[in-house]
Amino acid sequence: MGTTQLESVPEPKYWHLKTVLNDALDSEFEVGEILPNERDLAARFGVARATLRQALEQLELEGRLQRRRGVGTTVAPPRMGVAVGPSANSWPGARDAWETVGCVEAVAPAAIAALLGTGPDEAVHTIRRARVMRGQPVAAELLYVPPASVPGLPADLSPAAHAPAVLRELHALELEGEDRAVELGSARADDAKQLDRLPGAPVLVVTSRYYTGGRVAAASVSTYRADTCRLTFGDAGAFEVTHHQQDTRQAS
Amino acid sequence: MGTTQLESVPEPKYWHLKTVLNDALDSEFEVGEILPNERDLAARFGVARATLRQALEQLELEGRLQRRRGVGTTVAPPRMGVAVGPSANSWPGARDAWETVGCVEAVAPAAIAALLGTGPDEAVHTIRRARVMRGQPVAAELLYVPPASVPGLPADLSPAAHAPAVLRELHALELEGEDRAVELGSARADDAKQLDRLPGAPVLVVTSRYYTGGRVAAASVSTYRADTCRLTFGDAGAFEVTHHQQDTRQAS
Repeated sequence: MGTTQLESVPEPKYWHLKTVLNDALDSEFEVGEILPNERDLAARFGVARATLRQALEQLELEGRLQRRRGVGTTVAPPRMGVAVGPSANSWPGARDAWETVGCVEAVAPAAIAALLGTGPDEAVHTIRRARVMRGQPVAAELLYVPPASVPGLPADLSPAAHAPAVLRELHALELEGEDRAVELGSARADDAKQLDRLPGAPVLVVTSRYYTGGRVAAASVSTYRADTCRLTFGDAGAFEVTHHQQDTRQAS
Repeated sequence: MGTTQLESVPEPKYWHLKTVLNDALDSEFEVGEILPNERDLAARFGVARATLRQALEQLELEGRLQRRRGVGTTVAPPRMGVAVGPSANSWPGARDAWETVGCVEAVAPAAIAALLGTGPDEAVHTIRRARVMRGQPVAAELLYVPPASVPGLPADLSPAAHAPAVLRELHALELEGEDRAVELGSARADDAKQLDRLPGAPVLVVTSRYYTGGRVAAASVSTYRADTCRLTFGDAGAFEVTHHQQDTRQAS
């Protein structure tokens, strides 16, 4: 039945090996277990080291394996479902899952300045935040708030009072809407450190815009670990828990 | 002003090279231009081939470079903003951006059967679809529809009539909601072929569930090219076009 459009495609060698390895992970290894070294694995499966390495890289991209500094390659637990707005429909910092790490006033990168409509040399409040789930860092964020969005901000704030004051002023505005973009990126050094990864690790970069009074009042760039996270949209994030979804699903 | 929490972090060698290369791409190369070979580039920047390759991989992850079969490494155009529901709030196949490629009845993968609540050996209608933007394939999709969701489906459908009939029956149901998860993956051979990529290329995998009558009536797994796409949520997808956003932004 059906057409024959779903025809099979010849697979490269590492791809076949990946399938074999995947089955071996299911049947022989526990989550968290350390894999044998590359030389032993290549010998066992009768492949070249380069082929093995390609297959391991695929499995890492797919979240099946994790490379951990000073540990080696381990079998990864299932990815965590991490809810990414707009379910809450609330400003950053209001009842959300993030913690403030620091705050500076600085000129934003050109791409952010374009989103915010600020000038190329205009300093904006830049709040660094961290998101932790199940004791693990899952995301690092920079939240950008132009001074024009928080005109009532007191002058001469102490460093510790800076971020709370910016967020408080932001929350006084009416949030009219938000939108997001998700793309693949590689972790910058500062984000990587916060995420306990090496610089360059694959990350999912979520760029969010928050609207008030017909313009963008704030923007954020959130960097999620691509190895441990699946981003969920439109419900409470309990994507895996099928039986409970009927209560939490998004209204259309 | 501000705290000193945003301290600098020592950067590995390839990371510094990546920054230098990025600037060179901006100032010396046009979109689509082919980069010199690795040996020449390594010599020019005075680094080892391995270091160069790491930096090129980073730039590929970030969408700055593309490796194209039979061409080499080229400077990538900016990623395309690709709208991913639920802006339309409509069933798959109803006024959407996808084209049907084929349709079979087949047992779904275990993870999909769990989402749908179907039995492990129950065949479901499986529609393969393709999404093209600006003449380029951007995504491949498998849409899974259990027979229980389309009880009025005529028997003995011809291959060509199969997918349209399933979609027509699906559209007769009231769509109550949808949710999505986004994660990093590597392209399976059949998807890779459809996307004009090699198997294993990094992809953004979007898993969607469509609800009706308090249960999941259909699910889809959409595989987007991670090199050329940024997925947009919550507006018409014109994320780059800042000036027009005031009209298209999502209502809160």
